[in-house]
Amino acid sequence: MSKIKVAVLGATGMIGQRFVQLLEGHPYFEIEGLYASERSEGKKLREALKIRDHEFTEESLEMRISAIDVKEIARSSRVAFSGLPSDIAGGIESELASAGVAVFSNAANHRMEADVPLLIPECNADHIEMVRRQASFANGGFIVTNANCSTTGIALPLKALDDVFGLDTVVASTYQAISGAGYPGVPSMDILGNVIPFIKNEEEKMETELAKILGSMEGDAFVPSKVQMLVNCARVPVMDGHLESLVLSTRKDATVEEVVKVLENFRSSPQELQLPSAPLRPIIVRRENDRPQPAIDALAGEPARARGMSTVAGRIRKKNNFIKLFVLSHNTIRGGAGGSVLNAELAVSRRLL
Amino acid sequence: MSKIKVAVLGATGMIGQRFVQLLEGHPYFEIEGLYASERSEGKKLREALKIRDHEFTEESLEMRISAIDVKEIARSSRVAFSGLPSDIAGGIESELASAGVAVFSNAANHRMEADVPLLIPECNADHIEMVRRQASFANGGFIVTNANCSTTGIALPLKALDDVFGLDTVVASTYQAISGAGYPGVPSMDILGNVIPFIKNEEEKMETELAKILGSMEGDAFVPSKVQMLVNCARVPVMDGHLESLVLSTRKDATVEEVVKVLENFRSSPQELQLPSAPLRPIIVRRENDRPQPAIDALAGEPARARGMSTVAGRIRKKNNFIKLFVLSHNTIRGGAGGSVLNAELAVSRRLL
Amino acid sequence: MSKIKVAVLGATGMIGQRFVQLLEGHPYFEIEGLYASERSEGKKLREALKIRDHEFTEESLEMRISAIDVKEIARSSRVAFSGLPSDIAGGIESELASAGVAVFSNAANHRMEADVPLLIPECNADHIEMVRRQASFANGGFIVTNANCSTTGIALPLKALDDVFGLDTVVASTYQAISGAGYPGVPSMDILGNVIPFIKNEEEKMETELAKILGSMEGDAFVPSKVQMLVNCARVPVMDGHLESLVLSTRKDATVEEVVKVLENFRSSPQELQLPSAPLRPIIVRRENDRPQPAIDALAGEPARARGMSTVAGRIRKKNNFIKLFVLSHNTIRGGAGGSVLNAELAVSRRLL
Amino acid sequence: MSKIKVAVLGATGMIGQRFVQLLEGHPYFEIEGLYASERSEGKKLREALKIRDHEFTEESLEMRISAIDVKEIARSSRVAFSGLPSDIAGGIESELASAGVAVFSNAANHRMEADVPLLIPECNADHIEMVRRQASFANGGFIVTNANCSTTGIALPLKALDDVFGLDTVVASTYQAISGAGYPGVPSMDILGNVIPFIKNEEEKMETELAKILGSMEGDAFVPSKVQMLVNCARVPVMDGHLESLVLSTRKDATVEEVVKVLENFRSSPQELQLPSAPLRPIIVRRENDRPQPAIDALAGEPARARGMSTVAGRIRKKNNFIKLFVLSHNTIRGGAGGSVLNAELAVSRRLL
Repeated sequence: MSKIKVAVLGATGMIGQRFVQLLEGHPYFEIEGLYASERSEGKKLREALKIRDHEFTEESLEMRISAIDVKEIARSSRVAFSGLPSDIAGGIESELASAGVAVFSNAANHRMEADVPLLIPECNADHIEMVRRQASFANGGFIVTNANCSTTGIALPLKALDDVFGLDTVVASTYQAISGAGYPGVPSMDILGNVIPFIKNEEEKMETELAKILGSMEGDAFVPSKVQMLVNCARVPVMDGHLESLVLSTRKDATVEEVVKVLENFRSSPQELQLPSAPLRPIIVRRENDRPQPAIDALAGEPARARGMSTVAGRIRKKNNFIKLFVLSHNTIRGGAGGSVLNAELAVSRRLL
Repeated sequence: MSKIKVAVLGATGMIGQRFVQLLEGHPYFEIEGLYASERSEGKKLREALKIRDHEFTEESLEMRISAIDVKEIARSSRVAFSGLPSDIAGGIESELASAGVAVFSNAANHRMEADVPLLIPECNADHIEMVRRQASFANGGFIVTNANCSTTGIALPLKALDDVFGLDTVVASTYQAISGAGYPGVPSMDILGNVIPFIKNEEEKMETELAKILGSMEGDAFVPSKVQMLVNCARVPVMDGHLESLVLSTRKDATVEEVVKVLENFRSSPQELQLPSAPLRPIIVRRENDRPQPAIDALAGEPARARGMSTVAGRIRKKNNFIKLFVLSHNTIRGGAGGSVLNAELAVSRRLL
Repeated sequence: MSKIKVAVLGATGMIGQRFVQLLEGHPYFEIEGLYASERSEGKKLREALKIRDHEFTEESLEMRISAIDVKEIARSSRVAFSGLPSDIAGGIESELASAGVAVFSNAANHRMEADVPLLIPECNADHIEMVRRQASFANGGFIVTNANCSTTGIALPLKALDDVFGLDTVVASTYQAISGAGYPGVPSMDILGNVIPFIKNEEEKMETELAKILGSMEGDAFVPSKVQMLVNCARVPVMDGHLESLVLSTRKDATVEEVVKVLENFRSSPQELQLPSAPLRPIIVRRENDRPQPAIDALAGEPARARGMSTVAGRIRKKNNFIKLFVLSHNTIRGGAGGSVLNAELAVSRRLL
Repeated sequence: MSKIKVAVLGATGMIGQRFVQLLEGHPYFEIEGLYASERSEGKKLREALKIRDHEFTEESLEMRISAIDVKEIARSSRVAFSGLPSDIAGGIESELASAGVAVFSNAANHRMEADVPLLIPECNADHIEMVRRQASFANGGFIVTNANCSTTGIALPLKALDDVFGLDTVVASTYQAISGAGYPGVPSMDILGNVIPFIKNEEEKMETELAKILGSMEGDAFVPSKVQMLVNCARVPVMDGHLESLVLSTRKDATVEEVVKVLENFRSSPQELQLPSAPLRPIIVRRENDRPQPAIDALAGEPARARGMSTVAGRIRKKNNFIKLFVLSHNTIRGGAGGSVLNAELAVSRRLL
C-alpha cells in the first residue's frame, strides 16, 4: 500500500512541528508539504524550529516551508493536519474541506459545530461517522477536530468511569504546562517561580468539549452528556504535561479498587484496531504515593510510536462518596498533534480515507 | 507597659526565624532568647540562617542561640513561640506549659487535642478560652496552636462564606510553595520544572483542621463543623505563597456579587481589637482576571506589621450552584509564624498573658 | 525649591516603569507626564503594568499615559527620562534635546557618540561636562546616557581597582537575569531549566562601553581606556540581578586583602555630594563563601532610596597573578532607571538643570 | 565471549544508577550485583530511585541491593564501578583493588594519587598503563578514576586545542547543573530563580585535575601540564548538563576557522578502537548563535550507547589573541558514570581486564 500524502499546516508552530515529528516514518502517512504563513515561505524547518532539533530526523529538518495555498494542497495531499492558530484556522480548514481534503485539526474553531466530530478515539470513535453529513463529504473533504489539551487530559479516565459508574459531578483543577500556550507563549517574567490562575477560555472549553465527547450521537445529532463539569485552570512553570486534580462523584457507588481496575483495564477502539499511535495501555495507574508527575510521566506510552499518548493516573482515594485522584497527559502529543494523528488513523481504518 | 518576654523555639528553622523577624520591634513582645537543638548552641542567628539575611535587623542577626532548657525558658520568658519540628515539639511544649509558659505553636502535635485551641483569630477567636481548661492553666501555662499552612490559606474565606451562606461541600486543590516544606525541604531535582501531587498528611490535616476551626465550642467541647471538605494537595516550584483552587456549594444561594461583597467586607475580632499584626482587610478581592498570583500577592497585607497576613481571593465565578474561585495566602507568615503571633496578641487582649 | 518637572518616556515598558517607581517622592524631581506609543494613549499606568503593582503608589497607578509629543514634552518638562526601545529612542531623544529638554536615557543609541556622556557617576562624573559641547546645549537641551545593564554591573569594582592597581586584562562571564530582556522578553519555553549563552550585541556593548567609561576626557574628546575586556554573556532563569564572574590581571600587584579594602572603601562623587539615590556603600563586599546571589543581594543598597544601587562583590581570591571574584548588580535599577536618575541628580548638583 | 561480571557500588545514588542504566545491554559487561550501605540492603532498585524510572528496563528496576561486602564482591565480580560518596569511597576502593578487583571510580579520593590514572580516554588514554605500577596489580586489582564533572566538561576541547596550538592560559566560568550535587543535593529554596556562585572544592579540582589530564607520563610519573587554569564555578537551576564559558590564549596563533576545524575533527583512541560508549564525534560544534544549551544539547552523542558522551561547543569567536567559546557536557554521563564505563572499555581493549 502506498502511503497517503499529507500536508502539515502551521509548520512553524509547536503543534505543527509535533505533527512533523509524529509523522516521521509513519506507516500510513507521508508528508507531502509543510505550510505556514507567507512570512516563512522558503525557509527550512530547521530555521523555524519551536521544538528542539534533536527530536527530528535530518530529513525533516531539511524540509522547506511553503505559503498556504488551498488549491495546491488539495492537488497534492489527501489529508491536511492543521496546527494553525485559531484566528486563521477556521476559514482555511473549511476551504480545504470544500476542496476535497480531509482535515484533522487541532484548532478550536470547528470543534463545537453540529456536524464536526470532536474526536478522541478511545472515547467516542463512532462520532467520526458524522463527517458523512458534512456538505463537503461528497467530494471527499471533511473536518475532524481533536479536543483542547486539558480536555483531552482527563477525557479518557472520565470516559472509563462514566461507562461503568455513571459520572455525576466532576471538579477539575488544572496544573498546565507552558507549552500549552504555544511559542513564544508565556513570558518567562510571568511564570518563573509563579502560578497564573487563568488561561483564557480554557475552563469554558473544558466544560463544553467534555459534554460533547462524553455525549452520544443520536441520529444526525450529538447529544451532550449531562455530567456536571466544574473547572478551575492554572498555568505552572512546567515544560510539558498537564496535571489535573479530579474530585468526582458517581451515580453508582465505586470502591477505590474498582476505580483502579476500571481505569487499568480500559481499552477501546484504537487498541482493538491496533492503530499505530494507540497506546497499549490508554490509562496507566501508578501506585506510588507521589505520581503522576509531569517531569517523569508526560511521555508515558508504548510502543515507541505511542510515546506521550497514555494518560497516567495516580493517588486514587475515596472520601465520603467522592473519588479523588490526579491525572496527567502530554498536552502537545495526546492533547495536540498526536490526538489528530490517531484520529486520522481511525479514519483510515474506517475507510474514510 | 513593659514588654512581655518571649522565647523563640526552633530558631534555626524557617518558621523560628520568621518568628524572630515578626517580633522585631513588636509593641507587645520582646525576644528574651532563641532556642534550638544542642547542635546550634552558641551560634549567632546569622550563622544559621534559613531566611535571607536582608530581612533581619543587625541586632537579630547577632543574637546567639541556646540549647532548649525548659527550666531556663520558664524562668526567663512568659511566652514561647514554637517553630519546633513535630518529632520533638509535642513533649517540649507540654513541659513548657506545665512549667507555666504560654506556648504558641506552629507544630501539629497538639492541634487536635480536646482542650487545645486551633486558633485563627478571624475565624474562631472564642476558642482561645478553652485554654482555661488545660491542666497547666492554673499556674499560667497553656498551649495554643495555629493551623497548618494550607488550612489557614482557605480558612478566612471559608469562614466568611460559611457565616453568611452556610457551606455545604468544599473541593480544594492546592498549589503549595516549597517553603512550606521547611529547609532543606524539597530537593531541587524533584521540583525544578515539575509538580509533585503529594504532601504527606496534608490532605488529612486540611480536612480535620478545618472542621475544628469552622466548628463551634459548646460548653467544654469543640464541636466540629459538618462542612464536607474534599482536598487534593500538590507542590509547585514557587518560593512563598500557597495558591488554592476552590469549588464550593452553599446551603443558601449566593450570587457572585454577594460573594465578593461578603469576602471584601469580612472583618472580625483582630480588626475590631486592632491587634498589631491584624491586616486591615483580612480578605482582599482582586478583580483582574489573572489574580491572585504567588509572586505578586503573597505579601499582601497592611499596615506594615501585617505584611503577608491578608488572604487574597480572585476569579470568583459561579457555575450552576457552585462558586469557583482561587485563594492565596502566605504560608510561613499567615500560615505559620504570623498566625501564632496574632494568636498571642489576641491572648494579650483577652488578658490571658 | 520647587521640584523639577520631568517626563517619563516609554512608560509602558519595564525601564519606564522603574523610572516612575524611583521618582515617587523624589526630592528633586516631579513627574509631569508619562509617555509611550499611541497605542497606550489614555491608559492608566495600572492598565499597562510590567512591574508588579504592589511596588507602586496608588497615585502612580492612576497616572494616565500620553502619546509622545516632543513639543508638548518640551513645553511642560525640563527633563525627560527615556526608557524608549532603541528602534525609536535615537530620533526622539535628539528632537527633545534640540527642543531644550535634558534627556537622561537608558537607550543604547547615543551612548558611543563623541559628545554624549556615557555616565556612571561613581566612575566618570566629570564626563557629564561634555554635554556643554552638544549643539543643543545653548538652549538647555542635552543627552546623557547610562550604560548597558551588564556593563554597569562590573563598572564600579573595575573602576575602583583600575584607579589603584591599574587593570590589564579583564575576563567577564555573565549570568544575566530575564528582566534584562524587557517584557515580554524571553519566552518561558526557552529559559525554564536552561541557560542561553547568547545575548544579542551584549558582549560588544560591554567591551566598548567599559572602554569609554573607564577612559579619560582630554580636552573635547573621550579617550578610551586600554583595558583589555574579554566577555562571554549568558542568560539564566533568574528574575532580577546580573551576576558576573570576573578574572582579571592588574599592572600593579594586589593581594586579596588589598582588593577587599579597595572595593569596600571605594567612595566617589555621588557619595561626596550625598546625591539622593547614591548608595552609602557603592560596593559591598560579602565574606560568606557563597555570595553574592541574585535572589538575596540584588536589592542591596542603603538608604531606602538607594535600594538596588549597590554593587555586591564576593569570593575574592587570587590565583597566580590573577584576581578572581563574582560581582552582582541590579540590572533594571542600578543598570537601568536608577542609573539615569543618579545621572540627573548629578546634573542638578552641577547646576546643569 | 562471555561478559565480564561487574558490581555497581553506590547503587542508591545518582551516579550509581547511571552506571546501571549505561550497563543495560552492554556488549562487554554484565551486572552481577548492586551494592550500597546497609540501610538499603534488600531493597529493589525501584524502591531507591534517584533517576526517573522510565529510563530503566524493568529488569534493572527489579534488581535487589546488597550491603557492600568486599570479599563477596571480589568473589563474584571482576570489575567494580564506584559511585560511592567520597567519605567512604577511598577505603572501600583500596580494599577492593587489594582483593583483586578492577575499580573504575567516579569518586575524587584517589584521583590525584601518583599511580592512579585520572582518565579521559580521548585525552590521555596512555595514562591507563600506570595501573601496572599499583601494588595490587599483581593479583589483578587496580583503580582507575574519572575526572570531576566540570573538569571533564572542558577537557576534550582543551586537549584538542592544546595538541595543535599549545594552550597558555584558560579562564573558565561554569554554569553547573543541580544533578552535579547528587540527590537530595541542592535544596530547592536555594536555587529556584537563583544562581549560587560557589561549589565546594570545585575550582581547586578543576585546576589540579586538568593539569594531570593534559599532562604527560614520563617513565613512572605523571608530569602535570603547565597550562594556567583560572576557574570560577557557579550552580544554576538546570537539571543536567554543565555549560562552561571559556576564554583562552594559545601559544601558536589560531583563527576561528582553525579552532572550529580542530574541534570538529578531533578523534582519539576511543573512536579508533570503536569502543561501545565512544561518541562518533567527541566534540560537536554548533554554528547557531545561541548554542550549546543544556536543555537541548546535554544528551548529544551518537550512536545510542554514546548519548550524553559528546561535548558540544559553540559561539567560537576571537578577540585580540584570545579565543572565546562556550562548551557543554553531560555531567552525570560523560562527566560521571559514562566516563568510567568508557574507561573500563578502554581497559578491555588494552587487555587489562
